[in-house]
Amino acid sequence: MDFPRLQQQYITALRADIIPFWEKYSIDGHGGFFTCLDRSGTVYDTDKFVWLQARQTWTFSMLYTRLEKNPRWLEIANHGFDFLHAHGTDSEGNWYYALTRDGTPLVQPYNIFSDCFAAMALSQYALASGDSVAQDLALRTYRNILRRKDSPKGKYSKIVPGTRAVKSYALPMILMNLIQELSWLLDPAEYAAMRDALIREVSGFFIDPVTGLVHEHVSPDGSHPDTFDGRSINPGHGIEGMWFLMDLASTAGDDALISSALDSVLRTLDRAWDPEYGGIFYLLDAQGKPPLAMEWDQKLWWVHVETLIALLLGYRLTRRPESLTWFERVHDYTWNRFPDPEFGEWWGYLDRRGDVLIPLKGGKWKGCYHIPRALLLCANLLGELHD
Amino acid sequence: MDFPRLQQQYITALRADIIPFWEKYSIDGHGGFFTCLDRSGTVYDTDKFVWLQARQTWTFSMLYTRLEKNPRWLEIANHGFDFLHAHGTDSEGNWYYALTRDGTPLVQPYNIFSDCFAAMALSQYALASGDSVAQDLALRTYRNILRRKDSPKGKYSKIVPGTRAVKSYALPMILMNLIQELSWLLDPAEYAAMRDALIREVSGFFIDPVTGLVHEHVSPDGSHPDTFDGRSINPGHGIEGMWFLMDLASTAGDDALISSALDSVLRTLDRAWDPEYGGIFYLLDAQGKPPLAMEWDQKLWWVHVETLIALLLGYRLTRRPESLTWFERVHDYTWNRFPDPEFGEWWGYLDRRGDVLIPLKGGKWKGCYHIPRALLLCANLLGELHD
Repeated sequence: MDFPRLQQQYITALRADIIPFWEKYSIDGHGGFFTCLDRSGTVYDTDKFVWLQARQTWTFSMLYTRLEKNPRWLEIANHGFDFLHAHGTDSEGNWYYALTRDGTPLVQPYNIFSDCFAAMALSQYALASGDSVAQDLALRTYRNILRRKDSPKGKYSKIVPGTRAVKSYALPMILMNLIQELSWLLDPAEYAAMRDALIREVSGFFIDPVTGLVHEHVSPDGSHPDTFDGRSINPGHGIEGMWFLMDLASTAGDDALISSALDSVLRTLDRAWDPEYGGIFYLLDAQGKPPLAMEWDQKLWWVHVETLIALLLGYRLTRRPESLTWFERVHDYTWNRFPDPEFGEWWGYLDRRGDVLIPLKGGKWKGCYHIPRALLLCANLLGELHD
Repeated sequence: MDFPRLQQQYITALRADIIPFWEKYSIDGHGGFFTCLDRSGTVYDTDKFVWLQARQTWTFSMLYTRLEKNPRWLEIANHGFDFLHAHGTDSEGNWYYALTRDGTPLVQPYNIFSDCFAAMALSQYALASGDSVAQDLALRTYRNILRRKDSPKGKYSKIVPGTRAVKSYALPMILMNLIQELSWLLDPAEYAAMRDALIREVSGFFIDPVTGLVHEHVSPDGSHPDTFDGRSINPGHGIEGMWFLMDLASTAGDDALISSALDSVLRTLDRAWDPEYGGIFYLLDAQGKPPLAMEWDQKLWWVHVETLIALLLGYRLTRRPESLTWFERVHDYTWNRFPDPEFGEWWGYLDRRGDVLIPLKGGKWKGCYHIPRALLLCANLLGELHD
């Protein structure tokens, strides 16, 4: 593979396409970011989802800290931080799910992932700006997540306690990434203890030792109940978490764990790659039963770009050729299908055949996050591979 | 149109295909019904969703009261009633959302539609069996729905009160059908007052006077905020509610209302019919903005069969030829695409092109309800048209 050419392709897309799109169309002069942008970048809805406000704040902070000390990027990060700081939390420090354009609370803090992305944004913004308010709030938010983590939905949980206990992958998965992001703020012993606990939890419970598939929900003993939850496989989510796990394992110097996380990525791809039209299915049933989700066969932007990171990171850490073969296949599909050469940025939602399903560049779930993060991480990994 | 031939087609499908499928595969000897049935009728999950338990109980009760006094159907209805009565409610009489196979509560009573379908099932079962326990419980459940109706989600609501008040169509929509079902139990004055209130609410608030589209959520003054909720159009839901409204209007002798409800059906079809592949889209944005739902372009069983009822009822009540033209078009699509000649019963989920998307006959949302109800109602309407 021509690593230098690929590196150039990834970094050029980031600098010449993705960043300018969000710089140009997403800044709301009244504060915060518009994320609901149609094909051409026109705002089609003004609600502000805290996840996405935080993710874009994180992205521009990260571009400033990791790519270039561009004052415009810091300014945009500051614009996001100001809005989040002014409007993001309730009186107890929990992060709302959604706000109106002017920051009035719209949807309650029922979703702990708002808090996770807020903590990441605050930490990265503090790194970029040196702002101590952001730094303190990042840590306070992290501690609040830990306090809430055994009952993340709180009073909004609809599950009858005790009937069918499950452990869910989503929170430990995102915590693997969060502690890497916050490692500069945490006491090293606290960081290492949390890292090791997360490694034990994710690798011990959620990865099926036989199939290598990452399960979204397991019984408290790690077994897989034959229920909709127990059979649920989210390939992109599994694979994204496996690169978080490789990243932690690399910090911990655990080569066996890196290898088994990469195995999971590859086994998931064996299962989730669409043999007919290419691309990675969004949701699957582990036993091949009829999937619960109506959108199971769709091809999503974040699934594909997170997979590119996982495969390149896996290759850099192990040099296993299978990882590079898969990278080429997913790279070709991704670059053929997702970029919109006419109006810039990338489509988010393709149907099974790879045609555009929803003509948007941003919405309630797609913002300025997965694509720029992946382009930069992949560019850096490609750079390390040809150095 | 050859009404007698069509009537035969609908009633034969009901008697020779749909009813035998559920009789054969869905009865759980331990109580209640399996609804998660794959293509061939094999049970692939044993969880019991109260909506679907109630809907199947209603269906077999209704077949007994309206089609034929077949003792096997009453037995099946009784089998469903016993399970619902033994396991369906919490200590306050609210209906759980989901139970395990043996009836242990799994998901809390957060969803008032469980109560609505339970009330319908109990009422119809009481009619079929003369069971006074079912009759009392139907009325108690109905009163409990009315008590909860201004805050149907109760403590599970995630909306911050006061920021953006909305009225939602779903509950008044289903109440239109529920009071018809329960009319034999209600005091005539109470029934008429409720009927007239629902007519005022649905026709006064949710039907856009310019476009004729039925909005899922409106501002308290009936206006349509430019928000995801305010723009949300669910064509099948709108059309189903319009036949409930025609049914109420017919009871109230209001021909103008019948005509305007049928207008809504026809205008919705103008908008929601897929010009490229045929079939009715599942979800749309009223302003043509990017739809929020990933599954927006799918073709669903219930959308199509509810539309068949609405068009035939509209035609019988108005004799407007446009209604019959649309009926033929939707009939052709439905019968070409949904029935499974190999294993019987009908597919539920087709992709935009009309190919099978999820290979199931029943699941968490599809059970024994919309298809048998539509086949019998359409057969009866077709019979009235050729008499």
